[in-house]
Amino acid sequence: MRAKTASLAVMKLSHRLTNITGGRSDGWDLFFRARAMIEAGAQITELTIGEHDISTSTDILDAMSAAAKGGHTGYAAIPGTTALRKAVAARITAQSGVATSIDNITITPGGQSALFASHHAVLDEGDTALYIDPYYATYPGTIRAVGARPLAVPADSAKGFQPRGADIAAAVKASGAKSLLINTPNNPTGAVYSKPTLQDIAKACIDNDLWLISDEVYDSQIWEGAHLSPRALPDMADRTLLVGSMSKSHAMTGSRVGWVCGPEQVIDNLITLSTHTTYGVPGFIQDAATYALSMGHSLEEQVAAPFRRRRLITQDLLTQQNVVRAAPIQGAMYAMLDVRATGLSGEAFANALLDSEQIAVMPGESFGQAAAGHIRVAMTIEDNAYINAIKRLLAFAAQLASDKA
Amino acid sequence: MRAKTASLAVMKLSHRLTNITGGRSDGWDLFFRARAMIEAGAQITELTIGEHDISTSTDILDAMSAAAKGGHTGYAAIPGTTALRKAVAARITAQSGVATSIDNITITPGGQSALFASHHAVLDEGDTALYIDPYYATYPGTIRAVGARPLAVPADSAKGFQPRGADIAAAVKASGAKSLLINTPNNPTGAVYSKPTLQDIAKACIDNDLWLISDEVYDSQIWEGAHLSPRALPDMADRTLLVGSMSKSHAMTGSRVGWVCGPEQVIDNLITLSTHTTYGVPGFIQDAATYALSMGHSLEEQVAAPFRRRRLITQDLLTQQNVVRAAPIQGAMYAMLDVRATGLSGEAFANALLDSEQIAVMPGESFGQAAAGHIRVAMTIEDNAYINAIKRLLAFAAQLASDKA
Repeated sequence: MRAKTASLAVMKLSHRLTNITGGRSDGWDLFFRARAMIEAGAQITELTIGEHDISTSTDILDAMSAAAKGGHTGYAAIPGTTALRKAVAARITAQSGVATSIDNITITPGGQSALFASHHAVLDEGDTALYIDPYYATYPGTIRAVGARPLAVPADSAKGFQPRGADIAAAVKASGAKSLLINTPNNPTGAVYSKPTLQDIAKACIDNDLWLISDEVYDSQIWEGAHLSPRALPDMADRTLLVGSMSKSHAMTGSRVGWVCGPEQVIDNLITLSTHTTYGVPGFIQDAATYALSMGHSLEEQVAAPFRRRRLITQDLLTQQNVVRAAPIQGAMYAMLDVRATGLSGEAFANALLDSEQIAVMPGESFGQAAAGHIRVAMTIEDNAYINAIKRLLAFAAQLASDKA
Repeated sequence: MRAKTASLAVMKLSHRLTNITGGRSDGWDLFFRARAMIEAGAQITELTIGEHDISTSTDILDAMSAAAKGGHTGYAAIPGTTALRKAVAARITAQSGVATSIDNITITPGGQSALFASHHAVLDEGDTALYIDPYYATYPGTIRAVGARPLAVPADSAKGFQPRGADIAAAVKASGAKSLLINTPNNPTGAVYSKPTLQDIAKACIDNDLWLISDEVYDSQIWEGAHLSPRALPDMADRTLLVGSMSKSHAMTGSRVGWVCGPEQVIDNLITLSTHTTYGVPGFIQDAATYALSMGHSLEEQVAAPFRRRRLITQDLLTQQNVVRAAPIQGAMYAMLDVRATGLSGEAFANALLDSEQIAVMPGESFGQAAAGHIRVAMTIEDNAYINAIKRLLAFAAQLASDKA
């Protein structure tokens, strides 16, 4: 029993909670600096976050409103509505060729919730979980939030940020890791993992008895070829938890609707978890998502089209200079640009660019050491403003390189 | 390394996940049996779950639709919108008299999510957490879902299900527990904790350095007097995490919007947790909730009115017989009826009532051993149908008691 004055100090919180950021910055310092400048009245061009420059389409919102007014405002079925689980299962079956039923699907309030649930499902306290560096900002914290230890496996920029099975196997050997988290198409690098890369990853998972958590939320944003899911590879369906979402494919980021697709027994357990964490997803939002999926590929292509255009714009502008190099821009809404020829780190470059040109991009270092010396450009503003920003960015880099020479 | 055939069997899931139900039934067997009878064509009167017999009101849904169509469809601020946090803080300040600012509030997708986050915040793996029996169905599983050990503290039906500080202190002594979860007004018992009870609980928390997690989601459903929050008691604000929700007070169960109110440093950490679990709550739902709170008490009273009426109906019908006794029906949308005079357990009575009278109620045992020999009646159907059901229930009990005599 502690003294009664303990209540005057701050009482003890769980280590699991206070350790989520690992005692480090969450990597968003530049983003918040840019936002503060905007609030102070500055005109800043923001190429920072992965959010469309359009709202959710009116007909999807009409479907939501109709469902709500039609009375779907009570508790929805915790696993997700049958209609939405069917629609998601059908989309995955069509995309991957793997027969997928509603028993393989549970609906979550967004992809991040699906990532959390998937790691909760396969990791006990103190277990080690692998993830690929560069990484989306929440990955190591998500692993820490379930009491596990994150361990990064670097993907080499010189190899287009494609991970290697040998590096994964070595990390398992060193740590006894139980799971691997990958993301293709990749945020932040814009890489799409090739079939050989996915086969190499799958072999590493099978040889080392790893769960694979496969974040495929950018599956509709592929600039060449088609999306490949590792779940479709031989012997992988039983060890893969596929994370999906309506956020990027349907410009429904704020609706918070996603899913986990996996073996039936895992899904059964994840439904029990949902009963004790989120208690399901609003029925009217699920009805809107079901409607959106019923529109098929054409809507997804329409939502992806601006990024497809701006990717070509970016590539075209990059060929007109030779200071900034780009990793292959293959998918998702990002371009990862190598600014090492300027002599600056990604962080120093991004801060200098913000101060000199009022253009905000994310330092590669915000996403891990494998992206050091890079900056991530989100292709998320209107085309003309985008062209202007990239031209100024490239001119700024050229000046830095010339000053250095 | 395990053999490659491991992928053919079911791979290992976390103990934390597979242990959520503690290997027991989740207590909802009768509910699902009734639902199966309904699907098979039977006419069943359902007095099982805590859901209003009205939908969310049209003007709240109009506010939601206007916010969505107005463009609030992107990522919302993860802590919650400033407007909703302000509205919640103002409601809590007005209700409790404790000055509460937006820094004390984070918005969650529903009260269950707030319960999970609160336990995540204060419990490490293997810690013990107390809860009061009878309990809402998810409580022990929520504690297990964060890797902690649930320990029930019984509240005696003979004392109107009011818990005693001495029992809490004894449980801490036996277990080293770090937290206590209470719920007033109480589901399933319909008890409202008196001021002496709350003072006794507060003393036990201070003396034993416990976090108090106070589930107050039924705070608008009080049939006599006013709601008392233990956070308002001396020295309790720094050790109390108050869980609230729009579900019961505003008939917004399916909208999944709730909150945690607590010390600023805890809220800061819970916002980091949200970044890694739910990534915020839909902005258009938060705008709808802000609108609903702007309607003030009158809307809350209107939503509570049917339960207030049916509580009087229940009390009146009970005075006309002497077989079934009731715990004091003080708040929430439930009546806990003592059927021990029939010679049956709550479970046997509920099953017999379902088969004989096609009336579904929840066995007290579904909510813990302290409610054995009781049934929980949800006062959630239209008045005339409700009166008819209670009359038949009482007649059925009278017949059982007479057969036994």
